[in-house]
Formats: sequence, structure tokens, C-alpha cells
Amino acid sequence: MLNQVRELDRVFQALADPGRRLMVERLSAGPASVSELGRPLAMSLAAVVQHVQVLEASGLVRSQKTGRIRTCSINPAALRSAESWISERRSLWERRLDNLGDYLAGTAGLPDTGPAAAPG
Amino acid sequence: MLNQVRELDRVFQALADPGRRLMVERLSAGPASVSELGRPLAMSLAAVVQHVQVLEASGLVRSQKTGRIRTCSINPAALRSAESWISERRSLWERRLDNLGDYLAGTAGLPDTGPAAAPG
Repeated sequence: MLNQVRELDRVFQALADPGRRLMVERLSAGPASVSELGRPLAMSLAAVVQHVQVLEASGLVRSQKTGRIRTCSINPAALRSAESWISERRSLWERRLDNLGDYLAGTAGLPDTGPAAAPG
Repeated sequence: MLNQVRELDRVFQALADPGRRLMVERLSAGPASVSELGRPLAMSLAAVVQHVQVLEASGLVRSQKTGRIRTCSINPAALRSAESWISERRSLWERRLDNLGDYLAGTAGLPDTGPAAAPG
């Protein structure tokens, strides 16, 4: 449970940076090397490596080194856990609104409620 | 576009804190005052107010003051934009995997590919 909380902390923290989101975006189209990930970003290779490390620590990205090339790929499980957390809260909120709507629709039919029933 | 990038930065940053996620969780069940939001958290009211301000700046939460009571509620649009960002990347990645699976299933049927077709 505590691990799951920490995992979500790290995933949302990783996604809070526009450069790291660009990297995730690139990786969602397929694996890429660290230098490929850095290409569209105006930053040093050292900075790119640091961002990749944050993504790996969050579990969003996995990497494998073959010779001198480190290839990164998406770990969909981490994306899914963040997505589920948000969608569960959103649907809870929407269900609550639906229930409120049903309740109001129900009470609207009663003769003694609402301003419409008040004497003019 | 830049605004949307900054909005996502702030939403993910806001969700990266377990206390703020608890607040969003509480609010997804219905509006609540700032002191209600702070009740399950072991922190000062000043710290609670700061967290609420981060949530409001991100657009995840709206608040309204009536007398001395500030009541907060969820803004589902901000939840939805973060959810969409993640789900689009996840489905892009999954579609890529499906295409790869189809491709491999297709080439498996050809007589002259793969180690199985190589002379024993």
C-alpha cells in the first residue's frame, strides 16, 4: 500500500516535467536510445540522462544497455496505475453528480417542493 | 498549446503529493471545507491551506468562500486532461505492440523465414 503511494508520487512527479513527457511520448511510438530521446530537447546529454533516470526510478521507463547504447522502452503498468488512479476519482465524482441529478429529477415531481410550487 | 503544457505540468505536480491526492480523493465524494480536507492529515492548517492553493493553481480544485468557510470542489476538466494525456500514450504503445504481433503472426506463416525454416 505504502509502496503503491510512493510509486504514484514518483510517476506523477516524473510526468510533471514537459521534457520527460516528450520522452514518454517518443517512447510510446517504440523503443529509443538515450541520445535519440534527447535529440528534440535543447539540453545537454547529462541533463537527458538525469531525466531518463527519473523516468526509470518512477517505473515509467525501462532500459537495457547493449555495448555502449542504452535503449529505453515504456513500462505500460506504471502508466496504467496513474491512469486508473485519476479515472477512479473522476468517475466517483461523475457518479455523484448523476445521483444528485436523479435525486433532483425525483424531487421535481413532488407537488410541494421548489420555488415553482410556492405561491406567486 | 504552451498553456496546455503548463496546465499538465501543474496538474501532475499537484498529484505527486500523497496528501494532495487524499484531498482530491475526499473531494471526489463531494465538496468539502478546507478544515474538513485537513482533518485526516497530520499537518497544520497553514500547510493544508498551502496544499489547497497548489490544487487550485493546477485547476484540479475550485473553491468558494461563504462567510468564514471556504468550500472546495473538484474541477473534472483538469482530471480529464491528465487522464487523456496518459491514456493516449498508453494506447499508442499498445497499438504498436498489436501491430508488431500481427506482423510477427504474418511472417510466421511464410516458409522461408525464422529459425524453423532453416536447414536442420
